[in-house]
Amino acid sequence: MPGIGTIEVETRAHFFETDAMQVVHHANHIRWFEMARVEYLRARGVLLKDLMDQGILFPVRDVYCQYKEPARYDDIVIIRAEVPELTKVKMEFTYTILRKADQALLATGRTTTVFTGLTGRITKLPDHVFEQLRR
Amino acid sequence: MPGIGTIEVETRAHFFETDAMQVVHHANHIRWFEMARVEYLRARGVLLKDLMDQGILFPVRDVYCQYKEPARYDDIVIIRAEVPELTKVKMEFTYTILRKADQALLATGRTTTVFTGLTGRITKLPDHVFEQLRR
Amino acid sequence: MPGIGTIEVETRAHFFETDAMQVVHHANHIRWFEMARVEYLRARGVLLKDLMDQGILFPVRDVYCQYKEPARYDDIVIIRAEVPELTKVKMEFTYTILRKADQALLATGRTTTVFTGLTGRITKLPDHVFEQLRR
Amino acid sequence: MPGIGTIEVETRAHFFETDAMQVVHHANHIRWFEMARVEYLRARGVLLKDLMDQGILFPVRDVYCQYKEPARYDDIVIIRAEVPELTKVKMEFTYTILRKADQALLATGRTTTVFTGLTGRITKLPDHVFEQLRR
Repeated sequence: MPGIGTIEVETRAHFFETDAMQVVHHANHIRWFEMARVEYLRARGVLLKDLMDQGILFPVRDVYCQYKEPARYDDIVIIRAEVPELTKVKMEFTYTILRKADQALLATGRTTTVFTGLTGRITKLPDHVFEQLRR
Repeated sequence: MPGIGTIEVETRAHFFETDAMQVVHHANHIRWFEMARVEYLRARGVLLKDLMDQGILFPVRDVYCQYKEPARYDDIVIIRAEVPELTKVKMEFTYTILRKADQALLATGRTTTVFTGLTGRITKLPDHVFEQLRR
Repeated sequence: MPGIGTIEVETRAHFFETDAMQVVHHANHIRWFEMARVEYLRARGVLLKDLMDQGILFPVRDVYCQYKEPARYDDIVIIRAEVPELTKVKMEFTYTILRKADQALLATGRTTTVFTGLTGRITKLPDHVFEQLRR
Repeated sequence: MPGIGTIEVETRAHFFETDAMQVVHHANHIRWFEMARVEYLRARGVLLKDLMDQGILFPVRDVYCQYKEPARYDDIVIIRAEVPELTKVKMEFTYTILRKADQALLATGRTTTVFTGLTGRITKLPDHVFEQLRR
């Protein structure tokens, strides 16, 4: 079954993201996933801060990342995000991180994010937002 | 089957670890896992930097984290790490993050780490290091 | 003229704080300064989150850091903070970062922090908080 | 006396860069300065990693940042870097951070960076690199 949509985001591996093994520290991939999620929503006209202004938060419930090859300082990486599942309360993303220069696969991953109110209780997305995200 | 060993590390959720949802940003839990791994090894007399000096790296191959409740600014958290599996080439860790004040479960997770040479190729731990880690 | 007070905080240089020059990345010292500020206040019974609950923020207006020697992975460092100046609207801190093992001087710095309301406008500290901080 | 050159870099304030005051945490501006330094060099054909391959490091000796207005989540910011002074052993940068939408001034700063060998001892830039950077 095909996913709902996809996005690709490019970023550079910054010096401040490297560690003493001279590769990008593995916690930064989790941040890169977030960059892609945000852009996925933006591409469908949904801004995280607009959701927040409406009292809707978008916390991560779980994250998985498998590291295939290190990203190195100054590499341009592509973070591809796809949405295999979207309901009014939950959004699944899968991720593929590639090195742009040779399209080498650096990492794959996935996250489960939910929609909650400010208290952390699960909330249903308003219909019009749900429709925007389904496109 | 019981795991090989366990460690508990305490840290405080720092202001610089929070995000605009006013909780600890979820990528920091991945860093907290690392803190616990390092202390697990240290408690058995193995220092990551000594391994590195011997040309042995200890990269993360995959990481999973499930977020149960947010950690908040200034919370003291306990990161408990256990080792369900250790071979000469691989070390599995599972993690439990608790808020110290009320022992609330904040997150659980696991990582697979491997031992590699400087080129990233899998390498076997020297016997004496393996014996130290098994204790 | 002597400063008002002082505090010392210990932390370890974590692996995730290092960079590809195999030293602690220089932006982390700015975070270490924050750790010391927070503990300075705590030692006088003032919690940043209590201030925030009262609608008082404590933003940094400027920061300076001079790097003398690198902090390296696994070093235990001491962050000493002193307060040369405190008014009801402003608090100056100076910092000294030492490597614990040999007391080597790693960095010095200073920050200006102010008290503001939630809108960012300068606000005066309540008398009782001011008195606590002067101790 | 006019500076030697200038560069402008754009970046977005990411969610993971915010803190519980709902603004970009002040340590991230120090990282943004680094992003601009790196691009300044790249625009003149000098890559930090090529320098490192030649055994030349480029550590920061001091940093100053003055915060005028907070950067907020999702703001696009412009980091402008200028070089008021360059010698074969030292490079000064000044920085201006603007919010792109309205060109509001968010922060200014400066750094002193030096060229060193792998041991941290000051070293002179090779002539051809120095000439590239002067352009």
